Formats: sequence, C-alpha cells, structure tokens
Amino acid sequence: MTSLSIADVLAAATRIRPFIHRTPVMTSEQLDARLGAHVFFKCENLQKTGSFKARGAHNAVYSLTDAEAATGVVTHSSGNHAGALARAAQRRGIPCAVIMPANASAVKKAAVASYGATIIECEPTLSAREAAAAKVLAATHGTLVHPYDDCRVVAGQGTAALELLEGYPDLDLLLTPVGGGGLLAGSALTAKSMNRKVRVIGVEPALADDTFRSYHGTTRVVINSSATIADGLRGSIGERNLELLRKHVDDVVTVSEAEIIDATRFLWERMKIVVEPSSAVPLAALLNGKVPVAGLKVGIILSGGNVDLDALPWVHAPR
Amino acid sequence: MTSLSIADVLAAATRIRPFIHRTPVMTSEQLDARLGAHVFFKCENLQKTGSFKARGAHNAVYSLTDAEAATGVVTHSSGNHAGALARAAQRRGIPCAVIMPANASAVKKAAVASYGATIIECEPTLSAREAAAAKVLAATHGTLVHPYDDCRVVAGQGTAALELLEGYPDLDLLLTPVGGGGLLAGSALTAKSMNRKVRVIGVEPALADDTFRSYHGTTRVVINSSATIADGLRGSIGERNLELLRKHVDDVVTVSEAEIIDATRFLWERMKIVVEPSSAVPLAALLNGKVPVAGLKVGIILSGGNVDLDALPWVHAPR
Repeated sequence: MTSLSIADVLAAATRIRPFIHRTPVMTSEQLDARLGAHVFFKCENLQKTGSFKARGAHNAVYSLTDAEAATGVVTHSSGNHAGALARAAQRRGIPCAVIMPANASAVKKAAVASYGATIIECEPTLSAREAAAAKVLAATHGTLVHPYDDCRVVAGQGTAALELLEGYPDLDLLLTPVGGGGLLAGSALTAKSMNRKVRVIGVEPALADDTFRSYHGTTRVVINSSATIADGLRGSIGERNLELLRKHVDDVVTVSEAEIIDATRFLWERMKIVVEPSSAVPLAALLNGKVPVAGLKVGIILSGGNVDLDALPWVHAPR
Repeated sequence: MTSLSIADVLAAATRIRPFIHRTPVMTSEQLDARLGAHVFFKCENLQKTGSFKARGAHNAVYSLTDAEAATGVVTHSSGNHAGALARAAQRRGIPCAVIMPANASAVKKAAVASYGATIIECEPTLSAREAAAAKVLAATHGTLVHPYDDCRVVAGQGTAALELLEGYPDLDLLLTPVGGGGLLAGSALTAKSMNRKVRVIGVEPALADDTFRSYHGTTRVVINSSATIADGLRGSIGERNLELLRKHVDDVVTVSEAEIIDATRFLWERMKIVVEPSSAVPLAALLNGKVPVAGLKVGIILSGGNVDLDALPWVHAPR
C-alpha cells in the first residue's frame, strides 16, 4: 500500500473514466471576498452514487481479472462505499454482497438494494461486521473491497484531486475531510506528485479526532464510535493510510459540530448545492480561521451529497 | 413589447455577459431512464442572486443612459426580482429603491439590503405597492423596472434559453415555469427564433392557474393571491406577455402542490442541487405525465434556488 504511486492513480483514472463523472468545480465570489482567497470546490456530491466513493469502488471492481470478478465482491459499510461498490458491481455484471448493520438507515439500504446488491444484516459492531464478511467470503470465494484500507480504493480516490489539479495546477493548498483516510491519502499523494509546492491538510470533526491524534502523536488512535453529524467521518484512520499521511500530508486540524453545521448550511444556502455534513468539514476550517488562507488559491474536495432530507443538520442537530 | 424580437435578446446577451454566469446544464441518467427521454436542466439556481431574474434586471439597468441611470431604479417585488435589481444597481453604482410588503420574508429583505438598496415597506396589496412606487418615482425621477411587464426584462430573461439552445440546438421541447410570464415569453420568443421545430410549454401551479385560464380562454384572468408553495409563480400573467405567449407558446399545463413538492425533492435528493419549488414545476409536469416526452430531447429552465432552509417544502407543506 505504502508503495502506492502516482502511476497507480493515473491508471485508476484511465480505468474508471467510462463509468464516473468528471465532476464540476464551483466557486463563490461571496466566500472569496469573505476569506480574501480563491476557493475551488470539486463537487463530488455530483458524482455517480452521490460521493467520491464511486471512484475507488469502480477502480477496485475493474481491477479484477475476469476470473476474480466472477465470484463477486464483498464489503462491510453502512455508508457511501456500500452504494458505490454495489453500483460498480452492477455495472460490471458481477455479484456484490454488502454487510450492513441492522440499524443502518433505510435510505442507504434502499440505495444499495437499488443497484442489485445482496444485503446481509449484522449487529452494529466491528467484530460482527468482520465475522459476517469472513463468512460470506468463505462461501463465495469473492473479493473483499474494504472501504478505505485497500490500495485500489485509495488510488481511485486520488483521481478527484488529479482532476482538480489538472484544472488548477497552481493551487497553494488542498483540503479534504478525513475519516478512514482513503480520500486524504490518495489526494495528498496525487497533489504532491503534480505540484511539490501545494500544501495538503486534512480536516476532521473534533468528535472523531482519531486521525488528528494519530497524526500528531506517535501511535495510531482508534475510536470505536462517534456521534459526529459528519457520518462519513466516524471511522478510524487506516494503518496504511496513516503512513501515507505522515509522508504526504502537511497538517491535520479539527472543527466543532456547530462549525460543521454552519458550513453545511453555507453550501446549501449560498452555493445552492446539496452536500452531506462530511463534505463541509474543510470549509468549516476556513470559515473559522483554523487554516489561514488569505491570498491563497485553495482547493476543497466536497466529498458527497447523500443526506436524509427529512432530518436536516440545522433542524435537530446538537449545537 | 410585442414587437420584441430575437435581436433584443441577442443584444441583452452581449450587454449582461460581464455581470452574470453562463450557468451549467445538468442531466440525470436515472431521470432519463424513468422518462425514456433526455432532459437538460439549465441551472439558473446557480445564477448570480440565485435566480434567472439577474438576467432581466441587469439588462434593464445597463440599458439606461448615464443620465437615466443617475436617478436610479425602482421596483416593487417581494421576491427574486428585488434582489436581482438591487445587485444590478449596486454593480452599476446607482441608487435602487425596492417597495416590499411589510410581511415579506426576513431572508429576502436581508438579501436586498445586502446589495445596498433602500427598502420601502408597504401594505401587502397591489394598490399599496403601486402607490408607494409612484411616490418614490415622483420624488427621485428614477426609472421603474417592473418584475415582468417590461420589454428589457423579458429580453434579458430570454438569454437563458439562448444559452441552452446554443448548447443543445436540437431540443424537441422546452419547458419553463410561468408566473408573470417574463421567463416563458422571453424563452419562447428565443427558442422559436433559433429552432422553428421546438415546442415550448409553460407549466403553472393549479393553485395559481391564471395563465392556464388566460391562454386557453379569450380574456386575461387575474388572481389576486395564491397560496401555492411555488412562491415565485403567485403573480398574474402580464398583458403583453400573454400576447407573446399566444404567439409563441404551444401549450400551458398545470400541476398540483403535491406534484411540485415531489419534483422539488427529486431535484434535491437525486440531483443534489438546491432549487426553490417554482423551479420544479416543469419537472412535476414530466413526472406526472402532463406532457408526453418519450423519445424526446427536453430542455427545462430551473428558475431559482432561493428557499428558506428552515421551512422545507416537504416538512410542513400542504399535500
């Protein structure tokens, strides 16, 4: 994994091109005036399946040989990776099994089912998930595609930064949210390969600050559960991803729940796009001075747009 | 007004180009599969000030001579035209006065104020609005820029269809929402001038069906107030716009409140864009079979994205 290189990202870009969107980049004059900066948002909320996860999932599925593919793919995820892998498998015409906790949201289960995947419910613990996955893998001889601890997935996630830097090669700064670290690791590797001067910073909810503590400390910190509203970022940093972060990432900072909610609302209200709270975490850092940006060109990857429209962040969320 | 021609729209396009966005066009594979059609959404929700109204307002303001401009512009509007005119006036550096009903939303007043316009409150009746406007005009010798009954405004609104047809010249069908008729009249004039074969259809809430009844009847019907959730479409069709509709528009159809809400939610949930309910009215017609589209290339102008995020359509709206 840690031998992952820009060549893997470039290969992923070619491999997944027929199946995903080259998503647009949006800007806000109002935001730029407020920050005294130029901010470029890479809109992965407009990606197939509603998040950047489509990139890594399609790269993994289309990396398989026909023989490997024939036995299908398996993952455990309650979130965007599940839908992305199900869609990639459907597109290739191979079986997909997703282990989901019994308490996963009905909306997310419906999305996975709509792509024709088999859903296997389990208790909402990591050990139950892993045991259920092992059982399916033993029965099907399929391939596990982990949500973030997988080099094919990390290489695929790097293609969003690749597209962004192709359009804006002179970015001073690139920010992404960080959960398991696949997006941040892939983005940092890619950005540094394209422009050695670009600084790369990961932003994390303070309520799920395993990466912050791991990156700034000496050992990997694992958090078993978090109530952060940024539900895509509740997972803990992968061990191999942490190695990549130490190598390529310049800083990791955290933001509060209230800051995340305000930034989410800014994106909906001012930029007229639907993003999930996880997407708004890097903007929250800018709006609250956690990362100085005056005079800089800043790229942000908006990670996804899958949100329950019956339970909006600013309506019932903790402040 | 009824002598308005494509030349006026082309002149408007040139005039306003420095001040507005050339908005993107979005598509949805999922929607296309459901309808058996190709639908192209012109995203005026991503326009400056959050709606297509920026087009007409900037065309009007920049059509003024320096002498005319010096005394400023005046309008009466509680909605998107008010913010658009205020922004255009601020951009040109001239005074702007907006007559708003005392019960207009705080969000909309704040938007107008943020562009430096003077707000004059009045009772929420048409006669009070007109009396207040007359008083301001007498005092300032400014220029009235009506929200839709103004040829400069209609020509400006036509530039959205111009851009859409430039990109997709072989559309079979173009749909827009209809309130006062400026967008529909300008779009129809423009589309028919560019491609005689394109059919143009206006879509209106059944709760505000003045245009439907006017177009299909012999006299202009005026509705004094409507409770439709599509708050941009509560106004009645302008007399001159009705003439243009009779000349250039192929049909006017209506949709229910529940159909509007469902279509709004589709655009948020599936296409990840924030639109106001008025924008979703044409899609509501397609989703409910009010306009047959199988096999066709269909353009829709999404009119705007200014919505109160504390009061979402599907949370408290009448069904």
